[in-house]
Amino acid sequence: MTAIDLNADLGEGFGHWRLTDDEQLLSVVTSANVACGFHAGDPVIMRRVCELAAERGVRIGAQVSYRDLAGFGRRAMDVPSAELTAEVAYQIGALEVFARAAGTRVAYVKPHGALYNRVVHDAEQAGAVVAGVRLADATLPVLGLPGSRLLALAGEAGLPTVTEAFADRAYTDEGTLVPRGEEGAVVTDPASVVERSVGLARDGLVTSRSGTRIAVRARSLCVHGDTAGAVELARLVRARLEASGVRVEAFV
Amino acid sequence: MTAIDLNADLGEGFGHWRLTDDEQLLSVVTSANVACGFHAGDPVIMRRVCELAAERGVRIGAQVSYRDLAGFGRRAMDVPSAELTAEVAYQIGALEVFARAAGTRVAYVKPHGALYNRVVHDAEQAGAVVAGVRLADATLPVLGLPGSRLLALAGEAGLPTVTEAFADRAYTDEGTLVPRGEEGAVVTDPASVVERSVGLARDGLVTSRSGTRIAVRARSLCVHGDTAGAVELARLVRARLEASGVRVEAFV
Amino acid sequence: MTAIDLNADLGEGFGHWRLTDDEQLLSVVTSANVACGFHAGDPVIMRRVCELAAERGVRIGAQVSYRDLAGFGRRAMDVPSAELTAEVAYQIGALEVFARAAGTRVAYVKPHGALYNRVVHDAEQAGAVVAGVRLADATLPVLGLPGSRLLALAGEAGLPTVTEAFADRAYTDEGTLVPRGEEGAVVTDPASVVERSVGLARDGLVTSRSGTRIAVRARSLCVHGDTAGAVELARLVRARLEASGVRVEAFV
Amino acid sequence: MTAIDLNADLGEGFGHWRLTDDEQLLSVVTSANVACGFHAGDPVIMRRVCELAAERGVRIGAQVSYRDLAGFGRRAMDVPSAELTAEVAYQIGALEVFARAAGTRVAYVKPHGALYNRVVHDAEQAGAVVAGVRLADATLPVLGLPGSRLLALAGEAGLPTVTEAFADRAYTDEGTLVPRGEEGAVVTDPASVVERSVGLARDGLVTSRSGTRIAVRARSLCVHGDTAGAVELARLVRARLEASGVRVEAFV
Repeated sequence: MTAIDLNADLGEGFGHWRLTDDEQLLSVVTSANVACGFHAGDPVIMRRVCELAAERGVRIGAQVSYRDLAGFGRRAMDVPSAELTAEVAYQIGALEVFARAAGTRVAYVKPHGALYNRVVHDAEQAGAVVAGVRLADATLPVLGLPGSRLLALAGEAGLPTVTEAFADRAYTDEGTLVPRGEEGAVVTDPASVVERSVGLARDGLVTSRSGTRIAVRARSLCVHGDTAGAVELARLVRARLEASGVRVEAFV
Repeated sequence: MTAIDLNADLGEGFGHWRLTDDEQLLSVVTSANVACGFHAGDPVIMRRVCELAAERGVRIGAQVSYRDLAGFGRRAMDVPSAELTAEVAYQIGALEVFARAAGTRVAYVKPHGALYNRVVHDAEQAGAVVAGVRLADATLPVLGLPGSRLLALAGEAGLPTVTEAFADRAYTDEGTLVPRGEEGAVVTDPASVVERSVGLARDGLVTSRSGTRIAVRARSLCVHGDTAGAVELARLVRARLEASGVRVEAFV
Repeated sequence: MTAIDLNADLGEGFGHWRLTDDEQLLSVVTSANVACGFHAGDPVIMRRVCELAAERGVRIGAQVSYRDLAGFGRRAMDVPSAELTAEVAYQIGALEVFARAAGTRVAYVKPHGALYNRVVHDAEQAGAVVAGVRLADATLPVLGLPGSRLLALAGEAGLPTVTEAFADRAYTDEGTLVPRGEEGAVVTDPASVVERSVGLARDGLVTSRSGTRIAVRARSLCVHGDTAGAVELARLVRARLEASGVRVEAFV
Repeated sequence: MTAIDLNADLGEGFGHWRLTDDEQLLSVVTSANVACGFHAGDPVIMRRVCELAAERGVRIGAQVSYRDLAGFGRRAMDVPSAELTAEVAYQIGALEVFARAAGTRVAYVKPHGALYNRVVHDAEQAGAVVAGVRLADATLPVLGLPGSRLLALAGEAGLPTVTEAFADRAYTDEGTLVPRGEEGAVVTDPASVVERSVGLARDGLVTSRSGTRIAVRARSLCVHGDTAGAVELARLVRARLEASGVRVEAFV
């Protein structure tokens, strides 16, 4: 019986603003990527999400980002390595305090937004992120794309690595994501998302943009929580996975 | 033989800006109040100060502040308790990551600027700070003014408390600080500062503004590092303390 | 026939976050208090709200605030006068560029949140706001509470002043607002809000918390746009005002 | 007789931090690139620099930047055009309020740091900056590198353009700047800087890194104000220019 982790971005409000439906998502996912204050997330939100996640046995991950509240961390930045390393460690440490207070620990690290995309290919920034994770805790797993520079360098540095797939994103024949902005990059039909989730989790297969069945091995599946109907869709995905004989459980 | 701790604010630059002469001060003080990013201090600076402090055996304290880079934490803010508590814990956690990476730990907490002054009298904010410290680590000592609400509430909550005195500030007959802004509030003559340091550390006595000798018991002496000649003066204070038979050593 | 202005806070999103339904509110109100980036509002939002407001003939006001994104400007701050004055002018200037680009001008200034409440009584901060407005434009009207220090000092400084009332807030017998936090401070029943709006606009009268009819003279009525059903309620208020023979029109 | 403008970056402190010696520099330069709050500069500093500049007849330019206080605007960012355009206009508007209050106007725009370098080659960001300038004022001159995309697009859009040269930077044979980081990119010998200034201003010639005399036509010369000895060097440059028969005067 196959096991899959479901991860989602949580705690992405800031001050008076809210974005993600944290309570509902925490009843669906097994891993919560918690924003740490650099693209979203303030200390009050971080504390509350950690408490709720701990109560429900959901793993807490540090969703580290460029320092960019105004751009929600979606604007790539040429941050020098030493700065990026220290900023990553800072965010992990800040989240760790709330995870510990809730009786648990930060269990993994996942970069957010533009940083996530950048470290797929950029060895310098990928290395800086890895150094930041190691500075905080040299045993922390890193969650990312299969084949990314991030996971390669994390592995070389002795960090556990966890691969993830996206049921709502189109794949090329080579198994990489079709860039946002290109036509058909995002799969919006709920039924398709559910079906692709099962294919990815149970069979390690997905239909590429060109119609070919390709292999995508991932230990975690990312579901999105910031759109209308997102929670409902995540529930459906989880229900269908379980009905298909896939065990939904955290990777750690 | 009496022992006194010397503490100073360090790491109070941000990004491209510098303020405190961290390297020099670390060769004088026994406790470093490290800015944690809310009034000053960025992750690169925090990391470096922690590394230098650890090398030299200087204790690392979290200098927690209101979130106010533009005002350097010197503007009192009516922050609701839940926010202040979470913000204090966030800052401690962020600093802890760099302290641990340097092979040590955050050893105490000291509020900065307007927050420091506020928690002398404001029970609500003092309680919120204490709750934030406890959230991070229920064994962390709190450094503050003798007689302050902060130390009273920290003590009630089971946290170790450490009192401090200021050799360069005038005292009232009641043993409280003459508010900045009032005439003579700051002692600027270096010889007086040195002499008052010895009186405070060795005898627990200082001459008040009115000329009376009063008792001020403090385990730590705060020296300032952000003015011209500050490092030189701090060195003189330390030398004279040692020459007067006072042991200069951290309180923990 | 009496005339009343309807004002609402707009553009209170930031980056990826949204709060107010700007498009819908602009079809109801005659004056838009546009956030200027200090508590909410970013340049993209400010530009768009100005364009929409100009298209629809809605007046643009600068909703100036403490610099406090994390607290949404709702945390009172002890900002020194010189800083507050410059910060107010900065915000007005930043908004003016978008108002001009849209073919109009900033038509008035209204403080936001904690600053709004502070300048009711605090002469120093009220004076600093007035100085900031004058720095930007010595002919700009200031919108505020009748009897506030802000309007008194603005009037003394030669600025036009505009009084406003709140149909969804309880009043004391003295005509001041019942502080938020006290029971019954906010009127939540839509029918009551509509009825009180008409009483305030047409008759200059409202029923106080104790049940007394009191006089509250205001040229503008503030409607809120950040709660569920807010736009619908604002529409109802406007419709009932017009049906009651009140002319809904901007004060300038 | 040739005329040259001397420009320098000013007002690059923030809150409690200071960087540039604004008063001294304003006695040397003819154009002040004033930081507008996105990489440095707060409203109090902006106001003061504008007042001093106006008193001394120094032109005020808006030194617009990416929103990046932590990185001092030196980290390139992939900011979408609409955001960059609005951010540029916002900064110009904020500065304009202080320029007008001081009895003058913003006289030109110069991008700062990473944005300055980016718009040399990046047509999208250069176009976004030009659109932001036009949004604020369609007659504002833009200051930049000869041959840059920024000046090309500004010219096409009908904005006046002003070229600048750097006496303390090495040039390639093609007349472009040797990138910082490469050996010899910065000319540190004061005598060389002075001599190159005269060559650039009087003859439009400079010796390239390879030793060739090349033509660099510029209406303005940038002097730096953020290093030790900077003001003294700027004074020397100005004195030698005047002694060589070059008229030092603003370009507008």
